[in-house]
Amino acid sequence: MTLEKEIEISNDYYLSIGKAVIHKKPTPVQIVDVSYPKRSKAVIKEAYFRTPSTTDYNGVYNGYYIDFEAKETKNKTSFPLKNIHEHQVKHMKSVYEQKGITFLLIRFKTLDEVYLLPYVPFEYFWKRAQQDIKKSITVEEIRKNGYHIPYQYQPRLNYLKAVDKLILDESEDRV
Amino acid sequence: MTLEKEIEISNDYYLSIGKAVIHKKPTPVQIVDVSYPKRSKAVIKEAYFRTPSTTDYNGVYNGYYIDFEAKETKNKTSFPLKNIHEHQVKHMKSVYEQKGITFLLIRFKTLDEVYLLPYVPFEYFWKRAQQDIKKSITVEEIRKNGYHIPYQYQPRLNYLKAVDKLILDESEDRV
Repeated sequence: MTLEKEIEISNDYYLSIGKAVIHKKPTPVQIVDVSYPKRSKAVIKEAYFRTPSTTDYNGVYNGYYIDFEAKETKNKTSFPLKNIHEHQVKHMKSVYEQKGITFLLIRFKTLDEVYLLPYVPFEYFWKRAQQDIKKSITVEEIRKNGYHIPYQYQPRLNYLKAVDKLILDESEDRV
Repeated sequence: MTLEKEIEISNDYYLSIGKAVIHKKPTPVQIVDVSYPKRSKAVIKEAYFRTPSTTDYNGVYNGYYIDFEAKETKNKTSFPLKNIHEHQVKHMKSVYEQKGITFLLIRFKTLDEVYLLPYVPFEYFWKRAQQDIKKSITVEEIRKNGYHIPYQYQPRLNYLKAVDKLILDESEDRV
């Protein structure tokens, strides 16, 4: 199962039990040509994918604004930063400054391990990459600076547990 | 200028001065056929508009989760509720229960007046419509239960001022 599918299942579960309202944003598309056939619905005949200017997921959890991007990698030892766009990082920075909870969910496919990496350590690794020092984050660095999300029964990917830890740790840091 | 355009300008302004991070969600589209021409970008050849399952706008403002739908009406005396989908109301209810700030922005085109109508009074009028009592909300009812957003210099539609009042009033109600 893809990480995207797992998150969708978790989000549906959270919504159904009244725990959180978090959705994936629709893929941004630039619509160029639409035809309106008689007696049937409008058909988009020409459109193009646009680069997303924000992250893929956002919503609300017990009063907290939640905002994240989810990425999978086949790489066993590190997460390549080419997976993330610069405007997404800029967006996460703005969210962090507005006291939102923002992070990456990273899945190492071959290890079958998922981590929540908060914006603050991520920003450090991102800046390091900008300086051409290292274009990726090692698994060890993610383990040290992020939160492991162990698979469980329901939902399989209970990422809000890691969000709880992040909120607790950030509230201590920010006070 | 459309209400959508005015909100976009306000949101760009809020982002630029570091006041809030609020975006319009992309139009949800179901993509059926994509062609990948050589040496040029992917073209979506067949797609359909999907009914949105949430509201159009969301984001974060000083730690608060903000979620709203914006609607214009040419009607001079009332706002017809056929403009709002049932799943959008359900979504707003879930957001409210998660302690998010959720509301409608309603513009009366001919009066050139914009109001913020919070979820709680809106829910009352929505339920009244479900009971076939009245399928719209009168301007007077909106004036009494919502917040008028006077046009000003920059941004022209400073709707966060009304959000501030709503946050203040809700914090008093909820305590």
